[in-house]
Parts: sequence; structure tokens; C-alpha cells
Amino acid sequence: MKIALDAMGGDKAPEEIIDGAVEAVNEASGRFHVVLVGQRSVIENYIQTKGFPTANLEIADAPEVIGMSESPATAIRRKKGSSISVAVRMHRDGEVQAVVSAGNTGAVVASSLLYLGRIPGIDRPAIAIYFPTRNGGTVLLDGGANSDCVPKHLEQFALMGSVYAEHFLRRTNPRIGLLSIGEEPSKGNELARETHILLGKSGMNFVGNVEGRDIFRETVDVVVTDGFVGNVVLKFTESIIYYITSLIREGVNESFSAKLGAVLMRPVFRKMRETLDYAEYGGMPLLGVDGVTIIGHGGSSAKAIKNAIFAAERFVQSGINDKLRSRTEGLQ
Amino acid sequence: MKIALDAMGGDKAPEEIIDGAVEAVNEASGRFHVVLVGQRSVIENYIQTKGFPTANLEIADAPEVIGMSESPATAIRRKKGSSISVAVRMHRDGEVQAVVSAGNTGAVVASSLLYLGRIPGIDRPAIAIYFPTRNGGTVLLDGGANSDCVPKHLEQFALMGSVYAEHFLRRTNPRIGLLSIGEEPSKGNELARETHILLGKSGMNFVGNVEGRDIFRETVDVVVTDGFVGNVVLKFTESIIYYITSLIREGVNESFSAKLGAVLMRPVFRKMRETLDYAEYGGMPLLGVDGVTIIGHGGSSAKAIKNAIFAAERFVQSGINDKLRSRTEGLQ
Repeated sequence: MKIALDAMGGDKAPEEIIDGAVEAVNEASGRFHVVLVGQRSVIENYIQTKGFPTANLEIADAPEVIGMSESPATAIRRKKGSSISVAVRMHRDGEVQAVVSAGNTGAVVASSLLYLGRIPGIDRPAIAIYFPTRNGGTVLLDGGANSDCVPKHLEQFALMGSVYAEHFLRRTNPRIGLLSIGEEPSKGNELARETHILLGKSGMNFVGNVEGRDIFRETVDVVVTDGFVGNVVLKFTESIIYYITSLIREGVNESFSAKLGAVLMRPVFRKMRETLDYAEYGGMPLLGVDGVTIIGHGGSSAKAIKNAIFAAERFVQSGINDKLRSRTEGLQ
Repeated sequence: MKIALDAMGGDKAPEEIIDGAVEAVNEASGRFHVVLVGQRSVIENYIQTKGFPTANLEIADAPEVIGMSESPATAIRRKKGSSISVAVRMHRDGEVQAVVSAGNTGAVVASSLLYLGRIPGIDRPAIAIYFPTRNGGTVLLDGGANSDCVPKHLEQFALMGSVYAEHFLRRTNPRIGLLSIGEEPSKGNELARETHILLGKSGMNFVGNVEGRDIFRETVDVVVTDGFVGNVVLKFTESIIYYITSLIREGVNESFSAKLGAVLMRPVFRKMRETLDYAEYGGMPLLGVDGVTIIGHGGSSAKAIKNAIFAAERFVQSGINDKLRSRTEGLQ
């Protein structure tokens, strides 16, 4: 298997991205190759400077770079030589089986749509976000690929989330909830109210509206919402974890006994951080494209990139796209 | 001053609601009276059973009850004798200076609109949510009064939030941020993109888009969004705090040294819980109605009700509605 990695995408590119690739191929011991896509000289220089072994690593040159603030659709059309464009075209042409990028999310989505196309029956590919819970996790779609949605899109997100939960969370007949602001079907905005009706008639295991508080409560396996709300929730999660950690740290610094207590509790805090650390979960798949695109957090560390590469491997092996295709045939 | 309290509204009504009123009048030692609005016999029986002193407490009979799942607008029109309707009409008629309710939020909003009306220049009153931060707090509007909004509504939320931040967070020229999913004006859904343009021309201290992560980071004083997103964020906050606490508790139960550590850290955790506990902040004002309506959390405890009553007192004393009126004159 070969996995293309956008070496220029992400706040810490290319250093942490390349570090992550090196760690991944070392741990995988030959199961796959990683193709580092980006400015060849930059990548080669970095690898030489660090003295990294190059077994199972390849380089594909991509001279252009897309910035985090460029308009994604325009950038993808104009910069055919950007690392994300080159990586996705390699995937389209069968040279690699998956693409991983921590770059501009909009550009990753746009290039995947342009070069890979969609699975029939899916109008809008969506980003699946995994939330760790105490009993195996909840998946939320859309994590930010589509800011403006209509009910039909959310119905498709529900279907994709359901297939994802079967494959990756090992749920049978996953429970689907619609994110709204009250349990009653009449609650919520126009999009939620209309989607509620559609999901009720869909034949899927729709259990009704859920609220923000249900995401970590395991009342459902799949939470469906539009990409604007999903992305707000994703980024809010990060902030509140940072905030709570800082509250604890401040309190600890104020007393000697609390400091001692914190030392004794260190394993608990370490485990908590690991549970909540997105870097452990390895990127978010863009479901619904006819290929395998894994989107990394913009701030991805080497560890996050390594885990995103492993997520890509699992995704390819899962055959989830074939399953999705067989399920969407009913929708067309 | 007299404050009407909806004694029948909230998951723990009437017991915790009445307990909260008793605690409030005890602490206030005569600064205000609380009028308990609800089924007279129920309220009287409870007060007698508990042997509460009745100084500074009054009762106003309201025979009907609105359930949490009734359609708010319909319920308010049909049940003129419900506790929330009676309480808000008493406020309209000048018998009380404020209303506090932890009942059906939609019904509280609908009755306030119907009986109190709006401050000129405000089309949609909005719920102001206070988020505690390390440097004094951030206010977010709308917390759930309006699920479907247009840009003009969000502009009015910005104005109301700004006046709130001046009065209650003591900020000079408060910084206003628009909740979106990227810093660039082009990011976000249609509502966010159009509101960005409107706020840019408003003459207010608009600093641009903010993301979910900025709510606790104090990059702005006021966060503006529609009531659907605001309410999702509010309820999500509760769930994640519950989840993190449960992660810590589980870890602590697994080892003796962690248990000892937790004992030593008890004051830190207590302070953290206090900081994050909505019950400490006393309800959320419905800004933009021509009166004082404080909305309590549905699960309000006696402490939450007590603090909501104190919030009502502060709101009346602040004269914030006059200030709001003088500022909205420019908008009309």
C-alpha cells in the first residue's frame, strides 16, 4: 500500500509532518510506503539534516504551496502544482491508495471533490469527527466540509455516519441523533425541523433529536449536524479542555499540598490528556468521496500525523467505501 | 423592589424553586420581596411543611401549568393563568420590577414578548450567556431565544452584548466577535458571511470572526451567533465538564496514591467546580424586552434560583435597559 502525505500542509509543516511520516513507516515495518508530496529540495534537505532513514519513504515533487487563508476553490483550480493537488491526483491515478493532509481543510475538500469525485448518491462529502466517550466513542458529521446544508445533505451524513460507526466503532444498527436544541421534533431551526421529518421517514435507526450534552453521553452513536455547527463544536471542545486544564494548573500552583496531590494524580491526568488528545485519533476521514482522504488538524504534531497515516491504512483496509456504495444505491 | 418568581417552572419545581426564594430573601435582609407565582395551595403547603419564615415572601395564585414540552407560543396564548403568564403580566402592570423563571424557555420568551414588548430598535430579544474566563468573562448572544436569524438580528445581538459587557463585565468599548469557522470574512455559512459585512459597517468595535476556541480565550468580550448555535454550545459545555469530571473520578478510583492525591487537591477541584457551575452565575437575562426577565437553567437548584434572583436585582439596579434604549435610537 502507498499513502500520499501532504508534506507542506499544516502549521508545523514540513518538519513535524515529515517526522510523523518517518515514525509511521518505522512502526509499520514495511506494511506501506509513504509518499511525501511537496517541494522536493525542502523535503530532501530536512531528511538529510536529520539523518532519517529513507526506507519506505518516497518523494513526489509539488512546487506550489496553498496558504491557510487562500480561497480553497480558487487555489485548487489555479495551483495544479500544489502539494495537495498533486497528492490527490496521484490517488486518482492509482499511484497511492490514500491521501493525508493537515493543510487548508477547504482546499483538501475541494481537491478531493475535483479529482476523486463523489460516491454515487452522496451530494456532499462530510468530515467525520470522532469524540472519545467512556464506551467506545461517538461520531459527528459534518465536522466542517459544508457550511450551508439542506435536509437532504444531513440525511446523507446520517447514512455515512451509520456506515462509519458500524466499521470503526463496531456498532450494530447504530443509533442516529439529530443535533438540535430540544428533544421535541418541533424544536430547533428550520434545517433541523425539516431534517427531523426526513430522517423519520428514512428507514434508518433515527432516535430523534439530541442536544449538545448528548455528544459525550453515549445516548447515540452518530450525531448529525451541518458543517458550521459541527466545526464550532469541534473547536469549542479544544478550548474548553485547555481552559479546564489551566484552571487546575493555576489552583495547583497556589498551595504546596495541592502540588503534592497533583504529583500523586499524575497518571490520572496523563490518561485524561491521552483520552482527550485529538493527536491520538489520527485525523478525520472525508466520507463520501470516491477515495480515501484523511484530514489532519491544522496544528498536527508528528504523533498526530503518524496516527493519521495509520487511520488512512485502516480506512483503505476496511473497504468502507464499497459498503457505502452498496448502501447509497437505495438513495439514488 | 419586588421580584416575581415562577414557582412552577423548572425540573425541580416547586421545591427547589421555593427553597431558593427563601434563601434569597434571607440573605437580602429586606432589600426586596419575592412574589412566588404558582398554585397557591401547593406553595402554601410546602412552606408550612418546611416551616419557612414568610417575611419578604408573597404568593400570587396561578392555577395553570405549562409543561416543558408544550409549544410555547400556543401555551402562552391559551393558558393566561399559567405561572409564567401571571408573573410577566404582574411585571407589565408594575406590580413587580423583574421576573425570574426556570421553566420552558420558549414560553418565558413568548410571554415576555407578548406582555412586555421590545425595546424600540430590537426585533428579536436574545438570551445572554455568561462564560467564566480567567479575566472576567465573555458574554455570548443568543443563547437560544431565536433558532432562525437574519444578519440584522445578529447585529442587534452585538449591540445588546456590548451594553451588557459594559455594565456587567465592566469593559470599556467591548470587543465584539462573530462566531464562525475561520478568521477570514469569507469563512462560515451564509448568515455569518453576511453578518460579517454588516458588523464591519456598524461602527461598533467589531474585531472580526472568532472560533469556538475563542470563547474561553478572552480574545473578545462579546461573541455573537444565532440562538441555535448558541444553545448547542451552552449545552455542550455542560456535557464536556461532566465528562472530564467523570474521567478524573474514574482514574482516581483505580489507585490508592491517586485517591490520596485527589484528597490533597480537593480545594482545587472545589474551586474549579465553582468556577464552572452555572448555578453560581444566576440565570441568563433576556436582553431586548422592555422589562427584566431572567431565565434560569431547567435543572436549577435552590442555589441557582437564589443567584438568579440576585441577578434580577442587579439588572434592575443597573438601568441597563435605559442605556440600551439610548443606544438603539441610532439603529431605528
